Amino acid sequence: MSYNKIFYLDNVSTNPINPEVLSTYTMLLEKYYANKSSIHALGREVYKLHEKSREEVLSLLNVKNSRLIFTAGATEANNMAIKSVAMANKAQGKHLITTNIEHPSVHSSFKFLEEYLDFEVTYLDVEADGRIDLNKLKAALREDTLLVSIMAVNNEVGAINDVAAWTKLVKDNSKAYTHSDMVQALGNIDLDFNNLDIATFSAHKINGVKGSGFLVIRDHIDMVPLISGGDQEFGIRPGTENSPANIVLAKTVRIALEEQVEKNEKLKALKDHFYDSLKDNPQVRFNSNQEHSVNTLVNISVLGVNSEIMLNALGQENMYVSAGSTCQSDVHKRSRVLMSLDKPLENQQTRVRISLNTDLTIEDIDTIVLKITEIGEKYAV
Amino acid sequence: MSYNKIFYLDNVSTNPINPEVLSTYTMLLEKYYANKSSIHALGREVYKLHEKSREEVLSLLNVKNSRLIFTAGATEANNMAIKSVAMANKAQGKHLITTNIEHPSVHSSFKFLEEYLDFEVTYLDVEADGRIDLNKLKAALREDTLLVSIMAVNNEVGAINDVAAWTKLVKDNSKAYTHSDMVQALGNIDLDFNNLDIATFSAHKINGVKGSGFLVIRDHIDMVPLISGGDQEFGIRPGTENSPANIVLAKTVRIALEEQVEKNEKLKALKDHFYDSLKDNPQVRFNSNQEHSVNTLVNISVLGVNSEIMLNALGQENMYVSAGSTCQSDVHKRSRVLMSLDKPLENQQTRVRISLNTDLTIEDIDTIVLKITEIGEKYAV
Repeated sequence: MSYNKIFYLDNVSTNPINPEVLSTYTMLLEKYYANKSSIHALGREVYKLHEKSREEVLSLLNVKNSRLIFTAGATEANNMAIKSVAMANKAQGKHLITTNIEHPSVHSSFKFLEEYLDFEVTYLDVEADGRIDLNKLKAALREDTLLVSIMAVNNEVGAINDVAAWTKLVKDNSKAYTHSDMVQALGNIDLDFNNLDIATFSAHKINGVKGSGFLVIRDHIDMVPLISGGDQEFGIRPGTENSPANIVLAKTVRIALEEQVEKNEKLKALKDHFYDSLKDNPQVRFNSNQEHSVNTLVNISVLGVNSEIMLNALGQENMYVSAGSTCQSDVHKRSRVLMSLDKPLENQQTRVRISLNTDLTIEDIDTIVLKITEIGEKYAV
Repeated sequence: MSYNKIFYLDNVSTNPINPEVLSTYTMLLEKYYANKSSIHALGREVYKLHEKSREEVLSLLNVKNSRLIFTAGATEANNMAIKSVAMANKAQGKHLITTNIEHPSVHSSFKFLEEYLDFEVTYLDVEADGRIDLNKLKAALREDTLLVSIMAVNNEVGAINDVAAWTKLVKDNSKAYTHSDMVQALGNIDLDFNNLDIATFSAHKINGVKGSGFLVIRDHIDMVPLISGGDQEFGIRPGTENSPANIVLAKTVRIALEEQVEKNEKLKALKDHFYDSLKDNPQVRFNSNQEHSVNTLVNISVLGVNSEIMLNALGQENMYVSAGSTCQSDVHKRSRVLMSLDKPLENQQTRVRISLNTDLTIEDIDTIVLKITEIGEKYAV
């Protein structure tokens, strides 16, 4: 049995560019090539479109009193949200709080502050469903807590942490700034900026351009630039602006938000069908939690079949999945996220992350589930 | 008199994308969207093209025993070349040498090391033609000199510093690493890597994609990552790779090198004609040096006409120029480069940088020169 259809099930890692975004981006690359900082007419045209995109994204997200800083991606934005803010505001306190399930760019930014700049970091473990315990967060807050950073949606198991709830708790009980990595949340869940000071985003996770991300940060929060150079982006992020990518970002975000409800309806049906189809299979354990996760992914372990074997066997059938975070693509490494969820070692070794997308049908899920079941039976040791 | 033709004379700041580069890039954006680090077939396809581009660029530049690191632009690459290398190798010495005419991203990286990490920096002034005095460089070298960084071609006055000469002198007289910002050199002059350890480049200055640059560095030189995150780019530059931009870079560099000789022949005729046409105008002073500069730009001062007035008046005629480095677009600021060249204050206030391109004809130069002359007469105070 062979499948001609390609099942791209790695959307959480990156996804195809939206044709409408591509067409606008191509037009911008061709026509609006001038340097945004040049003061001649061509430069000013680019400047206007660039600033219009900045304002439109802020407006689409409905955030007030904040500035948007364009970056080369979410990794850079996360570094700025954490390092730039911590370094600029260390007089207010040198205690930081985050979780053990953050993206590598967040986790290692905290490690950097701890190792090189004498910050003290509390790493909260999460519950079995991937969510933080608000009481544990409250207990960790201190007089000198400068920043609390908790991702909105986890990239390996899709767990949703309620931003409105945890940011309110932090603001009610401390003077700390609040940051959330919203890369996997944008276009998938509703965002709440009421008590959130800093948020980070990526374009290529929402069918946008690679090498494009952004940071949204309250006007009053100081930052130091991590990269030294010219005056661009408020002097915080120098370098000739990637204006075509920054200008098309408004359209990218707009489409992601417009499609959110319809996309979720479709994905939820696919996700639930996936869970239902495998829940009675004794060989399968779910690392993601059906109730408290986004609809874009399911993370399972097929006991007895190492991740690498499962990935290769699915690949033979044109089913393309990942073991977990693509930023640490060595499948032999343990997942820090699954460790924090207290999953057994055999879940680690056999983990598979299947991203869902709206091109899939219920029948496609049946086909994928059948294949996973067959591979599970064939290769189990 | 009005001109329908647009004279884009700001190529040194950024230039239009090559149609062939755009077409390949668009194809890559559409088809090769997978994450380079994903281990499935689509990811591996991107991986192969990505690494092929890396190898091809190294081969085109004819550098050996070096690695290429893709970045979001030359500003980031310059930061890495200087900060990452200095921080990782500080045990070898904490003295650094650079010039006073470097790009803001180089200059402020040295300022950062000086201010925050106790490095000692010698900033060499240049001669009136924009070139360093090799004897002064030799005298500045010390036992503990870790790095010497001198740009190959200056971005405001186009001065060429002979990389082969200064890097040999450094290697003959010290243990220091050598770095050159080659952003304005690539595709304009021949590059020499014999004694050069680190070089930095940008794509958008050679008709490539914005948000794309790279660093070439000898294999044996340690670096610390400036951005924390995943394992990408040797663990030195994390974040999901901008693979479409990185893959098309090989073509961008190949075309720039293939066109170099023919382009220079054409530009030299235009440049010489420009100098010849204005050399007897008593109101005009040349900040660039006709003999020791690249053919891509001419930097003049029209005495009595402030830069802003000249830029606006030329803009009315669809002639788009800059006052100097676009990274510091405030024309009221003095140019650090012209100060190092010891130009009088009135040169500063009246400076104009005119970039040349191969679409221009000798008649176009006549038109531009005529307009500059007319504006000079009309607005002189």
